[in-house]
Amino acid sequence: MRYKVSVPRDVSSDRFVLSKGHACPALYAAWAEAGLFPVADLQNLRKIDSDLEGHPTPRLNFIDVGTGSLGQGLAIAGGMAYVGKNYDKANYRVYCLVGDGESAEGSIWESVHFASHYKLDNLCVIFDVNRLGQSEETSLGHDVETYRRRLEAFGAHAIVVDGHDIEELVKAFHTAANTKGKPTAIVAKTLKGKNFPNIENLDNWHGKALGAEADRVIQHLKTLIKNPGPPTIRPQKPLKDDAPPVDISNIKLSSPPSYKLGESVATRQAYGSALVKIAQNNPRVIALDGDMKNSTFSEKLKKFDNSRYIECFIAEQSLVGTAIGAACRDRTVPFVSTFSCFLTRAFDQIRMGAISQTNVNFIGSHCGISIGEDGPSQMGLEDLAMFRAVAGSTVFYPGDAVAAERAVELAANTKGITFIRINRPATAVIYPNDQVFTVGKALVVKKSDKDQVVLIGGGVTLHEAITAANELAKIGIGARVIDPFTVKPLDRETLIKNIKEVGGRAVVVEDHYYEGGLGEAVTAAVALERNIIVKHLAVDRVPRSGPPTVLLDMFGISAKHVVKAAQDILKL
Amino acid sequence: MRYKVSVPRDVSSDRFVLSKGHACPALYAAWAEAGLFPVADLQNLRKIDSDLEGHPTPRLNFIDVGTGSLGQGLAIAGGMAYVGKNYDKANYRVYCLVGDGESAEGSIWESVHFASHYKLDNLCVIFDVNRLGQSEETSLGHDVETYRRRLEAFGAHAIVVDGHDIEELVKAFHTAANTKGKPTAIVAKTLKGKNFPNIENLDNWHGKALGAEADRVIQHLKTLIKNPGPPTIRPQKPLKDDAPPVDISNIKLSSPPSYKLGESVATRQAYGSALVKIAQNNPRVIALDGDMKNSTFSEKLKKFDNSRYIECFIAEQSLVGTAIGAACRDRTVPFVSTFSCFLTRAFDQIRMGAISQTNVNFIGSHCGISIGEDGPSQMGLEDLAMFRAVAGSTVFYPGDAVAAERAVELAANTKGITFIRINRPATAVIYPNDQVFTVGKALVVKKSDKDQVVLIGGGVTLHEAITAANELAKIGIGARVIDPFTVKPLDRETLIKNIKEVGGRAVVVEDHYYEGGLGEAVTAAVALERNIIVKHLAVDRVPRSGPPTVLLDMFGISAKHVVKAAQDILKL
Repeated sequence: MRYKVSVPRDVSSDRFVLSKGHACPALYAAWAEAGLFPVADLQNLRKIDSDLEGHPTPRLNFIDVGTGSLGQGLAIAGGMAYVGKNYDKANYRVYCLVGDGESAEGSIWESVHFASHYKLDNLCVIFDVNRLGQSEETSLGHDVETYRRRLEAFGAHAIVVDGHDIEELVKAFHTAANTKGKPTAIVAKTLKGKNFPNIENLDNWHGKALGAEADRVIQHLKTLIKNPGPPTIRPQKPLKDDAPPVDISNIKLSSPPSYKLGESVATRQAYGSALVKIAQNNPRVIALDGDMKNSTFSEKLKKFDNSRYIECFIAEQSLVGTAIGAACRDRTVPFVSTFSCFLTRAFDQIRMGAISQTNVNFIGSHCGISIGEDGPSQMGLEDLAMFRAVAGSTVFYPGDAVAAERAVELAANTKGITFIRINRPATAVIYPNDQVFTVGKALVVKKSDKDQVVLIGGGVTLHEAITAANELAKIGIGARVIDPFTVKPLDRETLIKNIKEVGGRAVVVEDHYYEGGLGEAVTAAVALERNIIVKHLAVDRVPRSGPPTVLLDMFGISAKHVVKAAQDILKL
Repeated sequence: MRYKVSVPRDVSSDRFVLSKGHACPALYAAWAEAGLFPVADLQNLRKIDSDLEGHPTPRLNFIDVGTGSLGQGLAIAGGMAYVGKNYDKANYRVYCLVGDGESAEGSIWESVHFASHYKLDNLCVIFDVNRLGQSEETSLGHDVETYRRRLEAFGAHAIVVDGHDIEELVKAFHTAANTKGKPTAIVAKTLKGKNFPNIENLDNWHGKALGAEADRVIQHLKTLIKNPGPPTIRPQKPLKDDAPPVDISNIKLSSPPSYKLGESVATRQAYGSALVKIAQNNPRVIALDGDMKNSTFSEKLKKFDNSRYIECFIAEQSLVGTAIGAACRDRTVPFVSTFSCFLTRAFDQIRMGAISQTNVNFIGSHCGISIGEDGPSQMGLEDLAMFRAVAGSTVFYPGDAVAAERAVELAANTKGITFIRINRPATAVIYPNDQVFTVGKALVVKKSDKDQVVLIGGGVTLHEAITAANELAKIGIGARVIDPFTVKPLDRETLIKNIKEVGGRAVVVEDHYYEGGLGEAVTAAVALERNIIVKHLAVDRVPRSGPPTVLLDMFGISAKHVVKAAQDILKL
């Protein structure tokens, strides 16, 4: 590898992803030996005041992504390699070490396929086939020929080596660097605890410290060292600083939203338009999708600039991992879209993305029962619960096309994981094109001095709330309508102020299951306020196929139900 | 296939899983043609009052599982085949139709590996290689030889056929039925919209009705029918009714919990003990794990009866799908365990499990920061949010070993998806062995007439709450401690009654992120009550490696913080 020890995340340097994160003590030791920090610091492993954690995280300046949930590193390495080859057009290479146990994860095979499909010859993956899982032997044991066959069938250049033979390894890496048109996979047959007497290749040592055995083992290992003393080979720097400078700050829509009030536009269409606008503004904005681009409208970016769209096919784990890799070292601003329900396929990757301090933006379209006839398998009804529970996330729920465009612009500039929930059906444009939107700032959509209840909705249900307020007005009940814009952070202050002004009553209506969504965000936000009561309308069971408006009514989240809830809460 | 049209879910009949659920109109038509319901009913497709939904669900009596989120059917079929071969020891065969687009999902390859590893020669999967995805050509197009190589490398017997040639297909199915020791995969090269003039093999027809083209196409198709009139070949019944009767009702612990009050026992250990006890009581209780059995203690069942433990290795999607398949037609009572954070890997499968009306029990161990040094990648901090958001789920959070054993017993008898959250560290036994536990019934662990605040915790934080109550007592503040036992359903009545009795103040403390867990369950439950305020303590950012007790303190959920929160809320 070519890298600068003094600049661990140098943009032109080779990358290394330790997919088998539990092997991090070896990685820490290698960096210490390379001179990044004192070898003595290794004694602080897993201590509360050390960043040498039990699994790698980017709290360490030589780590790009958190690993430790297995089978994720290769997708990330693939994203880095895709960027190196296609955007940076630089010479850096990407290395990834995968454990044989984790190669049982289907995500690994999605990633090998991605790398071969996109001819990522700057990617080299090493499979450490040590035969032993945590609790028993892996299902393939030391059958390296089966690994070779699988890797070749998935399009990689596979090389089987004795993982303890340095010369074989060096040759394999040299061959990898000179192999064009496909990634190389080095299948390294190894023995866990090699040269540890009475431990090598034995079960029941996974994740265990040597304890009382340590002295004996270390004494033995010392006798095997051929060249004692400090290492004489030093890391080599990159041949060229050839990765271009990139600025991903202060991204803007190239032109403001331009809709007519009252016009019917789906927020997913506005997403596609906004994506193109920020891509016009910044050359490092990219989009990735899982064969849903004609539904999510990410295809608008593909049509605008084919090179900045990455088709990940129906493999959401690869989709998300690739995006996390592409975002590393601030090389790109990735927008990942698919149906919101299918993002659940990558919850583990998204969760790990938070640990990785990634800046990936997720777009979930076709949320809720409002998609209609396709039925429950296609309805995202737990997406808000999922993304709210991601550490440090920002969750947008735009109420119209203007809000959706601004959400995209804000997301591009927001650190951490963002999620924008967008709808399938067209809804009315309710905001003027110059409306200002801010993360954590709710909008009062409708108000009067005589309001008796606050109605809160998001996306399609914001429109149901507005309809309900109009109906309530007809029977003399003033209802204030609030659009939270971001569900996380939620604008607690605006909500509490307005709810108090109307006598402490609110109705929340959402196209989501009851748990973890907008309703619970609101009830949590007012939990320390006496004299505020909240009635919550949401989907309470598995829905079914049917026309969207019929479903909204059948599952209790249409304007009619909001009207009734408002009337009911006024009696409490 | 051999099956009884009159008994669509007959236990001795062959099974069919339509993994590419969007092709359901063809499946519905086949059953209508077989005589299950009038052909005219097919006109009700996707209507609100018809169960012929946009994607299949078990609302239809001939469907075992919901499909439509792609790449999931084969794991389910594998679970069915595993049960047929190893538990039912019956002759039925399992067929699964997979789309080529969805074969990009890694889960498909996990499932092929599972089936070959366990030699499931009663399983036959058909890959429909029609070349076209939703938005563009699949990455492999019509390259059937690559499919063949991949399937062979993953251990299947692969047969490539022209998917429109009935004779070739019949031969392939015959060969499949006579192939021993491995599953058969039929790679069927097909043309989407075969024989539809100007539509066949063309883009942009995915999921679209023919509309104005319909008459023209139907006229043309009619000219191709060689034998008009009703079908003359009828479905064949199974040769033998050889699947044994199974009773999975009223499952009991073979002996009650037997702990000493105050004894230190991790709830994960109690899980393993209870699993063996219900397995002693019912021969159809099985356990599945993803190479974590020595941490989750599911290995206790493996040691008790090796045949009832299914090792799924590090492939959580396969793990969950296999369990859903194993539970079909009430053949087994599966318990699926791994670290709770790794269950996020299968959120899509779990979500679909609810649509499938499955009765699978999930056990998530190593939840929260209390696991300590392994660090954030191994800490389940969003698991409650995930499982609460699953339609119809039951979420247990046992506070000690006695509660954990009873949770396992209750889960075995609870319909729908259940989740039991268990802890890594040992905690004190607080309940007598004869304590009665009920779904949806909280327990008041500590109370006095002078209580001023209610403290609510689960698992390790229940113990922090108890410690806090003892500390508060020393400074003259009475604190009532409540153990919800089930987070969903939550015992709203007991909570409200007790919180009102102490003056409307509660503190909830949980080892989970703020969103979607116990705290939000509580604030949602009291949302319609005036004069109740709730202070919520949870984890607010990505944690780190360190000793468990230090972490509980650092992240604000130790007894010390509960004491302070109680004091603070008394001032409000």
